[in-house]
Amino acid sequence: EIAEALFPLAARPLVDVRVLLTAGPTREPLDPVRFLGNRSSGRMGFALADALEALGARVTLITGPTSLPGPRVTERVDVETALEMHGAVMSRATEYDIFVATAAVADYRSAAPAENKIKKNADELTLRLVRNPDILAEVAALPLPPFTVGFAAETDRVEEYARDKLNRKGLNMIAANHVGGAQGGFERAENALTVIWHDGQRELPMMDKTRLARELAALIAERYQEHHAASS
Amino acid sequence: EIAEALFPLAARPLVDVRVLLTAGPTREPLDPVRFLGNRSSGRMGFALADALEALGARVTLITGPTSLPGPRVTERVDVETALEMHGAVMSRATEYDIFVATAAVADYRSAAPAENKIKKNADELTLRLVRNPDILAEVAALPLPPFTVGFAAETDRVEEYARDKLNRKGLNMIAANHVGGAQGGFERAENALTVIWHDGQRELPMMDKTRLARELAALIAERYQEHHAASS
Repeated sequence: EIAEALFPLAARPLVDVRVLLTAGPTREPLDPVRFLGNRSSGRMGFALADALEALGARVTLITGPTSLPGPRVTERVDVETALEMHGAVMSRATEYDIFVATAAVADYRSAAPAENKIKKNADELTLRLVRNPDILAEVAALPLPPFTVGFAAETDRVEEYARDKLNRKGLNMIAANHVGGAQGGFERAENALTVIWHDGQRELPMMDKTRLARELAALIAERYQEHHAASS
Repeated sequence: EIAEALFPLAARPLVDVRVLLTAGPTREPLDPVRFLGNRSSGRMGFALADALEALGARVTLITGPTSLPGPRVTERVDVETALEMHGAVMSRATEYDIFVATAAVADYRSAAPAENKIKKNADELTLRLVRNPDILAEVAALPLPPFTVGFAAETDRVEEYARDKLNRKGLNMIAANHVGGAQGGFERAENALTVIWHDGQRELPMMDKTRLARELAALIAERYQEHHAASS
């Protein structure tokens, strides 16, 4: 009650809203020591989880391996592979109002991970990979999907690819950023985002990831409320 | 001088000995965001670098990406890929008395890393990998090689594979550990080692990596001095 007196309801627009949020990379084992990984630090996702909790939401974080101290969330579930993340998300998704997919989920996993360490006899090695399930698209395709927010990390044609992903997967919103080069993103403390929805978009310019997460959380709350009002 | 008074020379057997030590994993980029990695934390290598400095050695550490605070070494060089580590080691190796290869260097790299993020259209993907140079074998094969210590992380037939590696690569010593399962090693605080040389071996049982590093450093010093006495 004290919190509500200090922060008027308008400043905590997500009170009692349940958010399921994925963060970090996934790791796809090739054998007991080697894996396919990616450069996601989990920093943007952790900051966004914090920012959504600060707006009143009850956040369940499902995260791949990171070296970050946990954010203060209602619940945290640690996973390693894309299949584990898929299971953790799909078993919970229908219980949430908002789903935010910041995790950099590996698109492919080894077709046949080795039980013992692979011996390196050959000069060349061919690795056969198979597609992982598309968690984001599966959540958005549920009969009664949560308000679904995706991320797109692109090295080129950022806005075009992101809007295509929004439409193709039936998302409510997508936050796109440019990775590689000096533009921020993976493994950096700063980032910039182009946030796109069906009939609009907004630029969040280069800034500290903590501040960027707060602005994005406020934008998610705004779009969620508009969507909620329109559909009820 | 105070240190020498407190620690008699016998307790600092590596005073003025130059040690080149590699640690951590390497990362082999597949595209700007994805990479092939491995589970080496760098912890054993960092602890060993510390322990060797404590015995009086001047250690140059060449390390792949880790999230560890640096050990107190004479010099530290950060690299990412196996090729970078190869370059950093081979340009320096002849200047050192001892070479210790604790790094988990990727055996393979992508035959053709993509400049832009790979689009995931196919259900299956085939990754063509090519062999990385064998840094350890190249150092041991130098005309006047340093005293060369390798590591072997094996999931099965540990001692047999390690002794084979010692002979095949012409090492002076190899420290073998069993990875996978509950036996310690990668991503764990404890480890056990079987240390093997041409005409002997010693078991260092499961213990904290810091203590294990001290025992291994003492054993390296002992074998190095014996080797040095025999060859001079």
